[in-house]
Amino acid sequence: MFEFEILAEAPGGARAGVFHTPHGDVPTPAFMPVGTRGTVKALAVSDLRASRVEIVLANTYHLYLRPGADVVREAGGIARFSGWNGPTLTDSGGFQVVSLAKLREIDENGVTFRSHLDGSAHTFTPESVVRSQRSLGPDIMMPLDVPPVPGSDDRAIADANRLTIEWAKRAVQELERTEGTSSTGQPQALFGIAQGGFDPGARAESVAALVELDLPGYAAGGLSLGEDKEATRAMLQITLDGLPRDRPRYLMGMGWPEDIVDAVSRGVDLFDCVLPTRNARNGQAITANGPVNLRLERHARDFGPLDPSCDCETCAGYTRAYLRHLHKSGEILGARLISLHNVHHYLKLVRTLRESLLAGQFDEVRTGILCRHGEESAR
Amino acid sequence: MFEFEILAEAPGGARAGVFHTPHGDVPTPAFMPVGTRGTVKALAVSDLRASRVEIVLANTYHLYLRPGADVVREAGGIARFSGWNGPTLTDSGGFQVVSLAKLREIDENGVTFRSHLDGSAHTFTPESVVRSQRSLGPDIMMPLDVPPVPGSDDRAIADANRLTIEWAKRAVQELERTEGTSSTGQPQALFGIAQGGFDPGARAESVAALVELDLPGYAAGGLSLGEDKEATRAMLQITLDGLPRDRPRYLMGMGWPEDIVDAVSRGVDLFDCVLPTRNARNGQAITANGPVNLRLERHARDFGPLDPSCDCETCAGYTRAYLRHLHKSGEILGARLISLHNVHHYLKLVRTLRESLLAGQFDEVRTGILCRHGEESAR
Repeated sequence: MFEFEILAEAPGGARAGVFHTPHGDVPTPAFMPVGTRGTVKALAVSDLRASRVEIVLANTYHLYLRPGADVVREAGGIARFSGWNGPTLTDSGGFQVVSLAKLREIDENGVTFRSHLDGSAHTFTPESVVRSQRSLGPDIMMPLDVPPVPGSDDRAIADANRLTIEWAKRAVQELERTEGTSSTGQPQALFGIAQGGFDPGARAESVAALVELDLPGYAAGGLSLGEDKEATRAMLQITLDGLPRDRPRYLMGMGWPEDIVDAVSRGVDLFDCVLPTRNARNGQAITANGPVNLRLERHARDFGPLDPSCDCETCAGYTRAYLRHLHKSGEILGARLISLHNVHHYLKLVRTLRESLLAGQFDEVRTGILCRHGEESAR
Repeated sequence: MFEFEILAEAPGGARAGVFHTPHGDVPTPAFMPVGTRGTVKALAVSDLRASRVEIVLANTYHLYLRPGADVVREAGGIARFSGWNGPTLTDSGGFQVVSLAKLREIDENGVTFRSHLDGSAHTFTPESVVRSQRSLGPDIMMPLDVPPVPGSDDRAIADANRLTIEWAKRAVQELERTEGTSSTGQPQALFGIAQGGFDPGARAESVAALVELDLPGYAAGGLSLGEDKEATRAMLQITLDGLPRDRPRYLMGMGWPEDIVDAVSRGVDLFDCVLPTRNARNGQAITANGPVNLRLERHARDFGPLDPSCDCETCAGYTRAYLRHLHKSGEILGARLISLHNVHHYLKLVRTLRESLLAGQFDEVRTGILCRHGEESAR
């Protein structure tokens, strides 16, 4: 279980593979739609299946607060609770505590915060977060980490790094101690999260210390927080250079299609991002030719499909003019149909990259994708 | 075209039939889900097809204001604009002007009002509303009418009746004058709307005057405005008694499943109501055993389906506990899945009634439905 097979590689580090999980095999590179509260916003399981989604992400922080990890445990884990019944990964809540919760306080033991829902006080420790994820029952769990606040000085980054590694070790111990207690009755893998801010040395140190733990997979955390793309890519490359090639690599929280293409070409295997669903709710579709802003007046009488090259339910059955009308009217169906298309587009993107790797045509396919993305906005 | 065939009848007036329209045959009794702004809220065309919806309602008032009747005309009519591509009916806007618009003023010519969207001033006349519906292109259009304000005195009801009939005549003339101008290139039928408030004499008069116009179908308007059920049913019966038996009868804006069963047993053929979709968004499911309020704590750990007797996507794939979680979290998927179930339930209800009429078992089936509806709330 949790075996990672590499099936094809390209110069530069890109690879196509399969990650075996108790809930099913995940072909990589894979994009995980974000189901924060146990639902990929506006989409049903039937939509995820139609777009050939292979693995879904959920958030420990949100599910712990509502409906509560115990309710999800009673349901038999997040995959059953949500009706998805396939592979899942849960984020640890480290990032959400920093970005959403109020009055947080970090000490050696863990992080104390107030819920963004009702202001109630809670403490997450590396151990409690593993136990919550035993209840949530994902195939892959993430350890509680300490993402340095953007703009931190060297000292603060070093402190965050030290805690992140200490907490990863405590998470590994708690994982061993709680073996056999998953709500699904299945084994669970714990990945590591590399931090280190935007300091090359601190990044490399974080990765090196993490790799000593010999984990079944590793993630690059703390990227895509508003920094420029060059900084992101430099830090990502340092992270990847320090990781063993035989474990899956997960780039957390990114990004635009061109970011995914770039990261795949460097050897990233797993992605998640709210962009396709969040931007959909703001009226933005992501197409093979670039982003389409349906709020623009020029789409009011555009009776063509969102993306003529797309075979999703939205592009097959609805026009830009209608989608614009739905969005402008605040109709739920607008968020749904655009989300459906965007997720479909992301899934097709990673599948296309994977197939090109298997066929030994990665470079040509990558160039073709990057050239087309951007045509729409240039119109 | 617009032929109405009666295939089976039961004592008391219930009948099963087929109404032929340019966009397809509508088996009756039929329930029309409400697609106010050109979308049955939260549902896609694929959902409507899966629930075997046969005809959808939209609102002239809303579509006139946004995206504008001209945009819908350019799309080829509301059936094409919305991707539904099946039979449609549009309400005239008479009820919406009274209930939604601001500062309305009615005179002999028509009604002047301010948009609830932006306060802009507009005038609807019987003629302009027919022309708008030529652009919207429904199979069935409704004339601009004057629903008397609840609590009106005899004089006000008589005035509203007189205008409703005058305007129906003007609508018929405008329909003839504009023949061949539908955005779909297909013929359109104009139904009549009987009003008369809750005065038996005024109701009967309104119906009698309307029937003289020899229209292809008739509606009972101005019911289900908060009055008690006995009053509704008495007025409905007076309306039906005055209508020719060979034309389809449409009860506007109703209601609960038991109201529909009652009205079918009196000989109503067409229904529309926002209840299944509006109540869904408020967390209320309508099941074979009665309403289920998912906001109640008792569903928090209820891992059974919404309605064990239902074969919809929601009941097949999701639990009450999950639906409650979605609703409490304000997730779009909650509104979608409960709406999907509720519409499915209403469609199954009218199909069951129709099949029982065709099989000569209406009375037994009606009794069975009415006995089950109410079990859930009694628990």
